[in-house]
Amino acid sequence: MQYPEPIAKLIDSYTKLPGIGIKTATRLAFYTIDMQEADVTGFAQSLISAKRDLKFCSICGNLTETDPCVICTDTSRDQTTVLVVEEVKDLMAIENTNEFHGLYHVLHGVLSPLAGKGPDDINIESLVTRLQQHEEIHEVIVGTNANAEGEATAMYLSRLLKPAGINVSRLATGLAVGSDIDYADEITLIKSVEGRTQM
Amino acid sequence: MQYPEPIAKLIDSYTKLPGIGIKTATRLAFYTIDMQEADVTGFAQSLISAKRDLKFCSICGNLTETDPCVICTDTSRDQTTVLVVEEVKDLMAIENTNEFHGLYHVLHGVLSPLAGKGPDDINIESLVTRLQQHEEIHEVIVGTNANAEGEATAMYLSRLLKPAGINVSRLATGLAVGSDIDYADEITLIKSVEGRTQM
Repeated sequence: MQYPEPIAKLIDSYTKLPGIGIKTATRLAFYTIDMQEADVTGFAQSLISAKRDLKFCSICGNLTETDPCVICTDTSRDQTTVLVVEEVKDLMAIENTNEFHGLYHVLHGVLSPLAGKGPDDINIESLVTRLQQHEEIHEVIVGTNANAEGEATAMYLSRLLKPAGINVSRLATGLAVGSDIDYADEITLIKSVEGRTQM
Repeated sequence: MQYPEPIAKLIDSYTKLPGIGIKTATRLAFYTIDMQEADVTGFAQSLISAKRDLKFCSICGNLTETDPCVICTDTSRDQTTVLVVEEVKDLMAIENTNEFHGLYHVLHGVLSPLAGKGPDDINIESLVTRLQQHEEIHEVIVGTNANAEGEATAMYLSRLLKPAGINVSRLATGLAVGSDIDYADEITLIKSVEGRTQM
């Protein structure tokens, strides 16, 4: 015997989400049935709305309701610096520090030969075009993740952009604030010694 | 800076699900934006449909599109035996074995003094009424979970129903098929010795 169709379909929908197997999907589906009607309706509407009303900014690749996005249209921001990130989530994380006031460029991915992802598969061409059209941009900060793929992408961007006379920098690697030295991994420790700062 | 409203609302909806915090909700929301439009629309529809089209069977408490449910209306089933379970999921698990051909009764919970759940908070009264109205039922199998609350509920039902001349039984406890004795917990081992069967 199968579950009644409405719940079977809902379980099927939940299993399409990443990291959710049949057991968790079943649990979530039964939970959904016990939720307030307004919450379920709101959930359904927010799914449709997120898919329908959001697009990527044609300039920087940020997720936005209006194109260009609020960051690209904000003339009070520093128009000379572009911080390159892998994903919109990274942009949000940096933006929430309220300390960076330049512009962004979202790659929507990272160079990964193992996953078959080359320079044409991520948002690099639009970055080059953007730098050519906006000569006021003279620094690109590469804010890809501090792992092998992020480093490779940073290296690629550096070799691509430096010959064009653009100042390419990389986010500092080192000890996370509040962390213990004896818990830090070796490569982080080496990087923190190499990148030591004057006091 | 906050996420654009459509995604912020979607993240908020995902966090209302059990076991999903803000980080997972954000990951799911971004995944949703990358999903096929048809899948997202289907997901939204299945949420609404599961909430709108499903009800609980007025006889047994099973989740169903029609009332009474397909099990209660199936006259080919053994009308003399009722298996009492905690949740619809348990009913489905037993039904999927294709070995039990009687009827069910879903309690929608379990007696739990610590959580403030007494006999009036779960589907016990409707079971008593059902047994009074259907004198052909002469065995009740208690299929609550094999934990403290499930055992307490089973004991309560046994004391409630036995005086009315109903044969009350309990699902067997013992070693799970395929399990190793040296990995079994002590109480399971004791139960498996107590409940040993003739060969």
